[in-house]
This record gives sequence, C-alpha cells and structure tokens, in this order.
Amino acid sequence: MISKFMEPRVANNSVIRQMFEEGKRLAKIYGAENVYDFSLGNPNVPAPEELKDAIIDILNSEDPVKVHGYMSNAGFEETRQAIADDLNRRFGTDYKWENVIMTAGAGSSLNITLKTILDPGDEVLVFAPYFVEYNNYISNYGGVPVVVSPDPESGFMPNIAEMKEKITPQTKAVIINNPNNPTGAVYPEPVIQELADALKAREQELGTVIYIICDEPYRELVYGGASVPHVPNYYDDTIIGYSYSKSLSLPGERIGYVLVPPQSDESAEFIDAVTIANRISGIVNAPSLIQLAIARCTDAKANIAFYEKNGTDLYNGLTSAGYECVKPSGAFYLWVKTPIEDDSAFAEELKEHNILVTPGSAFAGPGYIRISYCVAHETILNSMPGFLAVAQKYFK
Amino acid sequence: MISKFMEPRVANNSVIRQMFEEGKRLAKIYGAENVYDFSLGNPNVPAPEELKDAIIDILNSEDPVKVHGYMSNAGFEETRQAIADDLNRRFGTDYKWENVIMTAGAGSSLNITLKTILDPGDEVLVFAPYFVEYNNYISNYGGVPVVVSPDPESGFMPNIAEMKEKITPQTKAVIINNPNNPTGAVYPEPVIQELADALKAREQELGTVIYIICDEPYRELVYGGASVPHVPNYYDDTIIGYSYSKSLSLPGERIGYVLVPPQSDESAEFIDAVTIANRISGIVNAPSLIQLAIARCTDAKANIAFYEKNGTDLYNGLTSAGYECVKPSGAFYLWVKTPIEDDSAFAEELKEHNILVTPGSAFAGPGYIRISYCVAHETILNSMPGFLAVAQKYFK
Repeated sequence: MISKFMEPRVANNSVIRQMFEEGKRLAKIYGAENVYDFSLGNPNVPAPEELKDAIIDILNSEDPVKVHGYMSNAGFEETRQAIADDLNRRFGTDYKWENVIMTAGAGSSLNITLKTILDPGDEVLVFAPYFVEYNNYISNYGGVPVVVSPDPESGFMPNIAEMKEKITPQTKAVIINNPNNPTGAVYPEPVIQELADALKAREQELGTVIYIICDEPYRELVYGGASVPHVPNYYDDTIIGYSYSKSLSLPGERIGYVLVPPQSDESAEFIDAVTIANRISGIVNAPSLIQLAIARCTDAKANIAFYEKNGTDLYNGLTSAGYECVKPSGAFYLWVKTPIEDDSAFAEELKEHNILVTPGSAFAGPGYIRISYCVAHETILNSMPGFLAVAQKYFK
Repeated sequence: MISKFMEPRVANNSVIRQMFEEGKRLAKIYGAENVYDFSLGNPNVPAPEELKDAIIDILNSEDPVKVHGYMSNAGFEETRQAIADDLNRRFGTDYKWENVIMTAGAGSSLNITLKTILDPGDEVLVFAPYFVEYNNYISNYGGVPVVVSPDPESGFMPNIAEMKEKITPQTKAVIINNPNNPTGAVYPEPVIQELADALKAREQELGTVIYIICDEPYRELVYGGASVPHVPNYYDDTIIGYSYSKSLSLPGERIGYVLVPPQSDESAEFIDAVTIANRISGIVNAPSLIQLAIARCTDAKANIAFYEKNGTDLYNGLTSAGYECVKPSGAFYLWVKTPIEDDSAFAEELKEHNILVTPGSAFAGPGYIRISYCVAHETILNSMPGFLAVAQKYFK
C-alpha cells in the first residue's frame, strides 16, 4: 500500500528525528533539566525582538487580505528586493529582486533546485560527512547521490582531488554546506577558489554545466573571525539555498530562498523553472506573513555570540577531558572522534548518562559523534560529568 | 540544463497564474478599480479578527523558541488535538491527534499523500472539469492521471459509471474536490454514498486498496443549505487534504493538514509514511506560528456570507443576461457555458472589457469559463456592463 519509494524510508526513519522523540521521552521520565539533548539542530536562542515587532506591526497596519494572501509563486517583490539589497551590500553583487525566489526553508530550496535540474540517473556529489537527508532530496527526483570521502587531515575540508575523479558526464551538481553540518568547519576562500577552479576545468572538459548548490542556513553563524565566501563571486553556475532558520531562529517557520545569480547558466529560464517547481510541489509559495516580516528584518540577527560561547566551552571541556574534536568555526555542531570504532555504541554509552548525541554514521561519518550545542549553557555545564565519566574509561 | 520533467512545465506555465500576472499588468495601465479580475481563487475576505488576536497573544505570551522552533514533523500535538476535537464534534468521529498531520496547505497535503502511495505507472482518477494542477501532483511521483469525463446533465456530479470502467489494477486513488473547483457544485450525500459503494465493489473485485483522496479546502464554503458529507463516514480508505486557505482566508500562509482516519488501510503505517514524506520533501513541517494560532481558532470562520451574496448576484446577473451557469452551492466559482465553442476566444472577448476569467479548458472543461467571485462586490456590479455587452452579441 505504501509506495516502493517510501517503504524503506519508513523502515529506516531518520536517526536524528528518532533521537528528538527519544529526548522528549527521557525528559518525561527524568525531568527536562536532567536530560542533555544534543541531538537536534533546533536553535535555542530566541528570534530577535525586531521580528516580533515587525509581525505585530504588519498585523496591525497592513491589509490582512494582502498579509495572508497569495502572491506571485516566487514571493513578495518587496521581500525579494530587500534580500537582494542586503546581499548586494554584503557581497558586492548586483542582484535584482528577480534573482531571489522565496521558499519554505533551505530543505525546500534544495528540493526545488534539484527538481529543476535532475533527470533520473543524474548524479549529485556530496562531501562526507554530510546531512544525509540530501540523499532523499536527490532521490526524490531520480538522482543518484555520489559520496566523496571525508578528509579528516584537512579538518574536513572538501576532498577536491577525489571530487574531480568522481565527476562524470552525468554529474549535474555538487552540494556544499558551508558552514558545515555536522563538522562545524567553515570552508575558507582558498578552498572555495580551488573547488571553483576544479569544477570549471571539469565543465570545460566535459562540455556540461555542473552547479555548485550551496546549502547555507548557517552562513551567519561563524566564530573566531571566520567568514563564508559568497560562492557566486568565484563560480558562475552557483545556486544558493538559504534559510532564516538559524540566523533569525525561525526553523519552524519554514522561510528561506533560492538565489539564482544572473551570471549562472540560462538564469532567466532557471528562475522560471524553480518558481514553477515551488508551485507544483504543492507548497505554492513561502508563508506570507513571515515573508513580509523578513523584508523588514534583513539586518536583524539572533544572538549568535551565545552559540560561540557554548562551542568554545564545550570544545575546551571535551578536549581537556581527552576527546579529539574539530575546532568549531561555524554552525552549532561539535564533531568529536569516538574512542571506539562503533560510534552508535559510543552514543549509547553517553545515553546512559542522559546525554543524547547523534552517531556520525547518520552523516556518513562513522567514528565520530555530532554534538549540537544550540542548547542552554547549563546543559553543557551539567553534561560535563557524564562526558568525563565516559572519557575516564578510555583516556586514562 | 532544465530537467526533462520541468521543461514542458516551464513552456506551458499555468494559465491561471499567467492571468494573475496579466491582472497586475492591466491594473497598472487602467487602475485596479477598472480591471475586473475573476481569475484567481485568492480570498478577498479578511482573516477573522480572532486569528490576528491569537497570533499577537502567542507572540506576547509564549516562548519564542517554541513558537518559531521545530516540532515533530507532523506538527504540534496541541494543534493536531484541537483539529481532531473539532472534527469529532462536527462529524461524530473519534479521531485522535495522531490522525491529523499538519501540512503546508492542501496542495502539499495532496503531494505528500500521493508520494506515500504512488509508484511509477500507478493511476489516479480525476473527475473533469478539475484543478489541472492535480496532473502535476500525480506526475511528480510517476503516477498517471486518468480523466473521467464531465457530466453536465447532472450539474457536474462525478460520472460514477465511467469511473467504474476506468478503474484498473493500477488504480491507487480517486481524487474528489468537494465543494468543487471550478464548477461550484457540492456533491451531496447520495452521490458520495454511490461513489463509496462503487469503489468498495471495485476494491473487492480487484483485491486492491483504492483511496478516495478528498481535496477539501472549500469545505466550509457552502450556500443555500448545502453541506459536505464527511467521506470517511461512508468509505474507510479515505484520506482528506484540508487547508485553512479559504475558511480562514489564509492562502498565503500555507497551512492545512492530512487526515488519516483510523479505519483506513494500515493507517498507522500511513501516518508514519505521510509524515516522513512531509519531511523529505524539504518542507519539514507546517509553519509553526500559524499552527499555534490555528489551535486557538478551529471555531473561527472568515465571512462566508460575503461570498454567498457575490455568487447569488453574479448568478442572477449573468443568467438574466442569457448566460447558462451552474447554480453555485459552494466554493467561490461560477461555471458558465460559453456561447461559442472556443472558451479561450470567449475569455479574450471578455478581456476587451477588462474582465479576466479563466477558460474552462484550463480545467479540462472546454466550452465553459470559470469566474472566481472572491472579489469586491463592486467588481461584480461594475463588470456587469462588460458581461452584458458581450452577451448582446450572442443572446439577442
């Protein structure tokens, strides 16, 4: 009765989401304050006050028929213009409102982008470890995910040498996620430049178009002076999927955009196609009220410094206990090597101390765990005895 | 560069949506008050005041991390419970919160339902005239739309005799849209009973499961004493896709649900599958703030009486001018026979009077036009001279 496509996906439901449900279950037993749930990337910093004020002002001053009504499938022009202006200021670009298509978050941005370009059998490269939901996003349109191995020595930068080898005439796109989930790494300018050069060379050799699809929900979450290069400034055939989930702490609202730079291949046709893909996927348009609020809040930011402190304290705590961790430069994830090979077994050991983390295998990165540190600072402090207890077994 | 799936869809962009853009263009030239745009089903009645109050109160009193955060992919339990309670009160059912999965509107509800059940080559029956976006929704998952002919004599009730013939072992579902877009007809209880009986008989003959998928965004928009039967009370294997677009005038917000009744085939597995389909389509979850507002507003309604007056006045005006129309019982559409065979040409004639309507061919219903009467009452009054001028050419 369930389709053949969905059957295995029902059987192997998302590990991350199972953990989310498990966290709620444990919280009921032990009390929420005694469960240290580091499993889900659900921002715990409140949305900025400007956003609340914007929503209330819009409700009080604008016509509800407009506020809650249909607009063009690509979104309100005023919102698209405000975003284009913001990007132009920050990245020295010259985007028009037409280049920005409002979507129901980054997951939706990736899906309508992939729907726009993929025919069955087309290949999309991903760099392990990675958000494995990409596999579903690619398979939704008959595409085939091609995994490039992790490169721990470089601090989990993309393995460009291996990427070059894995590009074929069927390669339609390479997905990068910068800052990275699950590693917390940020790809700096030289890495993006090298990636762009390698892809340009392969495009010319093969005579094909290969997109870089940038999944950038964490773009504003960078620490210690790191910055995220704006990829269209390095590579023409770039499509960006953005979300306000993290920068404005709005993950549940499902609001983001696809950016189609004018210099990308047949950009006008791409804009039409991605807009139609948005419509026919049944989403129709990004949620309207929050679109209008975004137009007034492109400068606003949730309190990112909070995450930086969490990341630093967690990193310092765990490394001094003996754990080997990637130093976090962005996002809100700490990527920690497990002292035993079986990362799921290690996650179970932590769970005995009411610590919930995600095994790296869930990101095609076995031998590691991902710790989401978008949690109360006390959660980090109070979880330390548990992390230490487990550490003593292995590092003393 | 654009996928083979998307290419023809870019080439033949939605007629309705083109009209929407055309309406905006004409409004700029002639002034919005001199363009009579009956092309889009965009409610023009404001959302009820309770909804605004609910949103503002939630923003002022609840934790923003909850309000804008992730929840289970199927939605907030409190919203699902409030909807189950409301349905139970109205339809004498016994739904639990688990039976309700929150979605980004009815379009999304249909998509994740179809993704759950369709394998490539599976057939889905639709009754012409119909919202042809169903073709895309079905094709998104490799399904094949099978069109059952219109039945003008019955006032565009579903042609059950032809449906029975068109059911094959590949038939996975029949979509019904009640009240109907584009005809404004409401299928009464005897019709639903006959449909249910016919499908039960075919299910038993073939040994298959055939779902009725009810697309019900217009459920609350009924006039002159009409009422919409709750199909799960007549047929077990029913899935309902609902949206608050019309009942609360929130089409831009993308908020609705899938109802999976407990008596439907393997309902627990179906609930899991449709929830996962919601997640992996990239939507992840229905927008959060509006979900919480809905939980407080299941009893609220936009001013439906406004549409009833519009429908009555338009029907009376056009029929006395000589037009042949289906008497509207629900939704906010008037379905009008064109005096010439070519409905697109007739729509062009009306456009010369700044009247925008949608040719019936866009709904697989040639020889008719659809007039969306979710417009200001003056639009109906002021458009009458144009309708009369065209009528005089044909009916005198």
